[in-house]
Amino acid sequence: MDNLNIIVLAGGQSTRFAPLKNKLSYPFLGKSLLEIQFQFLKKLRSKKIFVVANELNFDDFCRFQRENPIISTVMQAGTGMAGAAMSALKEIDDLDSVLVLNMDDFFDDSLILGLSKRMEAALKKKQGLLTGLWKEKYFPGGYLVLDKKGKVTGVVERPGEGNEPSKYVKMVCDFFYSAKIFRQALVEAKTEKDDQYEVAVGNLMKKKEIFDLFEYRGRWETIKFPWHVLGVMDFFLSKIKGQQIASDVVMAKSAVIKGDVVIESGSKIFEGAVINGPVYIGKNCIIANNALVRHSMVGDGCVIGFATEVARSYLLGNVWLHKNYVGDSVFENNVSLGSNVVTGNLRLDETNVLVKVKEQNVDTGLNKLGAMIGSDVRVGIGAMLMPGIKVGAGSFIGPGVIIGGEVEENSYVVVKQELKTSENRISVKEVSREKFKKQLK
Amino acid sequence: MDNLNIIVLAGGQSTRFAPLKNKLSYPFLGKSLLEIQFQFLKKLRSKKIFVVANELNFDDFCRFQRENPIISTVMQAGTGMAGAAMSALKEIDDLDSVLVLNMDDFFDDSLILGLSKRMEAALKKKQGLLTGLWKEKYFPGGYLVLDKKGKVTGVVERPGEGNEPSKYVKMVCDFFYSAKIFRQALVEAKTEKDDQYEVAVGNLMKKKEIFDLFEYRGRWETIKFPWHVLGVMDFFLSKIKGQQIASDVVMAKSAVIKGDVVIESGSKIFEGAVINGPVYIGKNCIIANNALVRHSMVGDGCVIGFATEVARSYLLGNVWLHKNYVGDSVFENNVSLGSNVVTGNLRLDETNVLVKVKEQNVDTGLNKLGAMIGSDVRVGIGAMLMPGIKVGAGSFIGPGVIIGGEVEENSYVVVKQELKTSENRISVKEVSREKFKKQLK
Amino acid sequence: MDNLNIIVLAGGQSTRFAPLKNKLSYPFLGKSLLEIQFQFLKKLRSKKIFVVANELNFDDFCRFQRENPIISTVMQAGTGMAGAAMSALKEIDDLDSVLVLNMDDFFDDSLILGLSKRMEAALKKKQGLLTGLWKEKYFPGGYLVLDKKGKVTGVVERPGEGNEPSKYVKMVCDFFYSAKIFRQALVEAKTEKDDQYEVAVGNLMKKKEIFDLFEYRGRWETIKFPWHVLGVMDFFLSKIKGQQIASDVVMAKSAVIKGDVVIESGSKIFEGAVINGPVYIGKNCIIANNALVRHSMVGDGCVIGFATEVARSYLLGNVWLHKNYVGDSVFENNVSLGSNVVTGNLRLDETNVLVKVKEQNVDTGLNKLGAMIGSDVRVGIGAMLMPGIKVGAGSFIGPGVIIGGEVEENSYVVVKQELKTSENRISVKEVSREKFKKQLK
Repeated sequence: MDNLNIIVLAGGQSTRFAPLKNKLSYPFLGKSLLEIQFQFLKKLRSKKIFVVANELNFDDFCRFQRENPIISTVMQAGTGMAGAAMSALKEIDDLDSVLVLNMDDFFDDSLILGLSKRMEAALKKKQGLLTGLWKEKYFPGGYLVLDKKGKVTGVVERPGEGNEPSKYVKMVCDFFYSAKIFRQALVEAKTEKDDQYEVAVGNLMKKKEIFDLFEYRGRWETIKFPWHVLGVMDFFLSKIKGQQIASDVVMAKSAVIKGDVVIESGSKIFEGAVINGPVYIGKNCIIANNALVRHSMVGDGCVIGFATEVARSYLLGNVWLHKNYVGDSVFENNVSLGSNVVTGNLRLDETNVLVKVKEQNVDTGLNKLGAMIGSDVRVGIGAMLMPGIKVGAGSFIGPGVIIGGEVEENSYVVVKQELKTSENRISVKEVSREKFKKQLK
Repeated sequence: MDNLNIIVLAGGQSTRFAPLKNKLSYPFLGKSLLEIQFQFLKKLRSKKIFVVANELNFDDFCRFQRENPIISTVMQAGTGMAGAAMSALKEIDDLDSVLVLNMDDFFDDSLILGLSKRMEAALKKKQGLLTGLWKEKYFPGGYLVLDKKGKVTGVVERPGEGNEPSKYVKMVCDFFYSAKIFRQALVEAKTEKDDQYEVAVGNLMKKKEIFDLFEYRGRWETIKFPWHVLGVMDFFLSKIKGQQIASDVVMAKSAVIKGDVVIESGSKIFEGAVINGPVYIGKNCIIANNALVRHSMVGDGCVIGFATEVARSYLLGNVWLHKNYVGDSVFENNVSLGSNVVTGNLRLDETNVLVKVKEQNVDTGLNKLGAMIGSDVRVGIGAMLMPGIKVGAGSFIGPGVIIGGEVEENSYVVVKQELKTSENRISVKEVSREKFKKQLK
Repeated sequence: MDNLNIIVLAGGQSTRFAPLKNKLSYPFLGKSLLEIQFQFLKKLRSKKIFVVANELNFDDFCRFQRENPIISTVMQAGTGMAGAAMSALKEIDDLDSVLVLNMDDFFDDSLILGLSKRMEAALKKKQGLLTGLWKEKYFPGGYLVLDKKGKVTGVVERPGEGNEPSKYVKMVCDFFYSAKIFRQALVEAKTEKDDQYEVAVGNLMKKKEIFDLFEYRGRWETIKFPWHVLGVMDFFLSKIKGQQIASDVVMAKSAVIKGDVVIESGSKIFEGAVINGPVYIGKNCIIANNALVRHSMVGDGCVIGFATEVARSYLLGNVWLHKNYVGDSVFENNVSLGSNVVTGNLRLDETNVLVKVKEQNVDTGLNKLGAMIGSDVRVGIGAMLMPGIKVGAGSFIGPGVIIGGEVEENSYVVVKQELKTSENRISVKEVSREKFKKQLK
């Protein structure tokens, strides 16, 4: 669409993503999320893509912009979605149309075709579009209210199960046929709360501007909390079809590769290792003897050591494991676990794992969730990581420590054992064990 | 034998079996002990089998009785063996003969043929029979005293090694040719202690009633203490001959099945798993990657997870393991161990494992003994279970806990670590590890 | 050489070798160090080999002497190298020549040929020889000072990096063409410190006796500290060429043997085990299911149990492992680790491992170093052994203990956990896990 401008909201502070950082640099299937998102957005063939950035990611976007002239990075000026949108709208022609999206939302390619057609039609009819994600089960988001003709008449935030006004959860994927009208509505919206954007859209509806429902039934993933990385991982793992193994990958005869798998150049798979797809293995990894990797992404330079299992986990890169179990976990770069360190990923009572985020316990909705560990962390032998724990970047955890909550960045945690030493007067000779040896056959 | 009545003693409270329960429901080779015992007893072709039950198992027996009209369940009235026998004798004709057995004793089929013949002969001669288990080594039980003609003249309880009056330990497998005489002896036996039954038999001997020795040289197992389950397991494992693997069992190419093995329908064996017989695997089990099961029974619905070893252990059903070692242990239903939980099964000093039973330390006679765990127990990651420990049903054990004794039912045990957290000023870069990577080949 | 006498210094007390003992009895490739050294020395075709012994090893040497008449064992009389040399010199003819060597130094065979030729030439020219090990990088030893003609003019102890007077570190491999002159120099050397030997050599130089450099560029290993066993192990592992597997070794089909390997008679290799050379496996060992042994020596009678990794380690004999990781470690005889015991072999900060030796922290120069454990030690399940720790002979370590320093001989170390037990009111049914089971495929 010749006059379509996309505004991508990327100015949030991502504090809820701690202890993980800089999520747009996270690689999936060998590409960073940044690359992946712009490749996706380019398919909408817009005039321009405005990225509303913050101080932390502004430079990243600018670097990317150099090779992608369709992109224009603007620094977020005001607060909230309204502030973000306004920062970009300043540079958009009055007569152009606008699509507002979140940098952190991931949709299927099926969105592209449907949305393109609907936007063209809406433009002709001078209507807006609001995107509704069809949800069979209740989801704690904003639900679209529809009139009999299927037009959107409002949004109800978290109505509670059974009170949903429709089956559609509102996504941030909003089409405005006129930049001018959209800008004016934002300027005129008055509110005490941080909902200027929503009030503006509400006011437009009151002024009889029509917002049609754009129904989306594909997969949607977002990445606010650290465990959301696992949802996005699933999203990309499901795109692997068949086995794509680089020609220089060295594989032992007794190694087994099953299911849909990508293994990048320079990686080695040792005896008895099993890779049970969907799995992505990055460059220069070692999957050592008797290791098992299933339903996971293992980034560049990782060593999955002897007798280690990695299940449903995302390891960004340069992670060293050895005789570990890592389940339902997210590790950033340069993390090393000593022998026998394990992640608990299921509470004893088997209820959903809760994670403290900014002093609040958040129900992750996940029955199984392991550890979320920032970059440059070392964990000593035999340490135990409880379900849903977070370890900040640059921390060292001593041997035998049980981590039950959150470890702040650059912490050194050790356990002080009360040892009792006495004289041992009993001696045990090696012959005592001959009978046990006979049991072994 | 047309007029033979079997009285099966099943009215004991089984308190010494704690933390395990309801042993008669324990399956071996796919059948409950209840079924197994009655199948065995039916081979004696008696007129009737009277089971003397208690409040806990009365209903189980009655259910079983419905499909097995030869069985008659009676509630135990008085105390001890005498009370039990009297409860059944009320319903037995004066002219009938009686065989008294324990529900908890397991004999070879070799007992059937020999005993049948001997009982017929004894009936004709109007004699009783007492069963003596031939023991080469001293056993802490009651020993039969024999006269020169091989008639039993008495019983000596625990004579101590070297003082045995014969090589025969008395089993509860007593034949009385006349129900009337037996009943009368019980009624007339006077004693202060809980030995009315033994006094009655002694009195009969004094009255010149003859009790011949019935010599038994086969295998005998009983099931009083929880670790006795392992002896009974061995007893039944030795009956497996060859490999009986259900046709729908899915097995990875690299899995290995050795020795005498039964694998029931619906089970799956993953890559690198080894099943080293004698082993029984129940229905719908998963023996996961690189797991090792040897000399064990794994009941229905168990998951023997990645890199787990199960050795010489009985898992009743629905047990979940993952990176564990379970050795010489008995687990009931729905027990789950977190990653890296291990059972210790050998003391550091390698002497026999002692177990506290009702405030008394009992020498199990076993050099190797692991954990005995009731139903519905959850154990957190990295917990350590010392040799011979007991965990009551419904308990949760936290991560990293060392269990050294007995955990009561429905307990929640956690360890409180003294952690010391300081600032970590050292940073370790991933490049430091390139040299280690080169060592891996 | 007809008149050459070798003096082998073996009278040191080896206290720095603790917790290990009696290093000369350590077997490498099936022979004790004692045997190995004398086989080596015999190649020098001397008239006699005098071993200067101490109270602890005198008898061992005498036993060995019986079958090796070229050897003569003398008890060390005075202190230091001078005292040791004097003890032997008493029995050496005045006109004979003398080579002084350390029992604990290991050289390549390349030393033999070169040294023999040089000694013959030196004898003719009436000169001595001092041996210099060519070192590219700085080494904290004594450096030879050379004049323009390549004669040795002195020795500088630990000059510090950049201040080396030459590239040659002085070895104890000193040739004296005249026993008489050598003896006289020792007698006349006056010093307050323990350096009478060095002063004597220095005085000879002052008296214009010539000492030529004998340059040695081969491998040298010594064995003062316990971790030096690993260097000597490497030295001997590098001598294995190809695979020498005794004909009676039983090996599972799925076991893998790679690289240069010796496996002695009576050993068994189970399913999924990998032996990744260079590796030496002694007699009657069991390498159990899924075990991995690499770059190690496993002495007679060891059991490397299920899912255990042994890497770059020396196990003297009768060591029992089970689900362990043993890396960069030295274990003496009859050591047993419970399930899940692991050795840490890398500090969290990845700097060199320090070891306390006689109250002083010694920098081992090793980035990776595990545990050094004396004979007859038992370690309970789940114990954690930190990098560079030492456990004295005859000690027991309880389950879950973290060993961070040195455990004295015959100690019994246990950890006292603070447990909190409460009532558990939550029950978890087995059905909850059906969904997890579906994930397994």
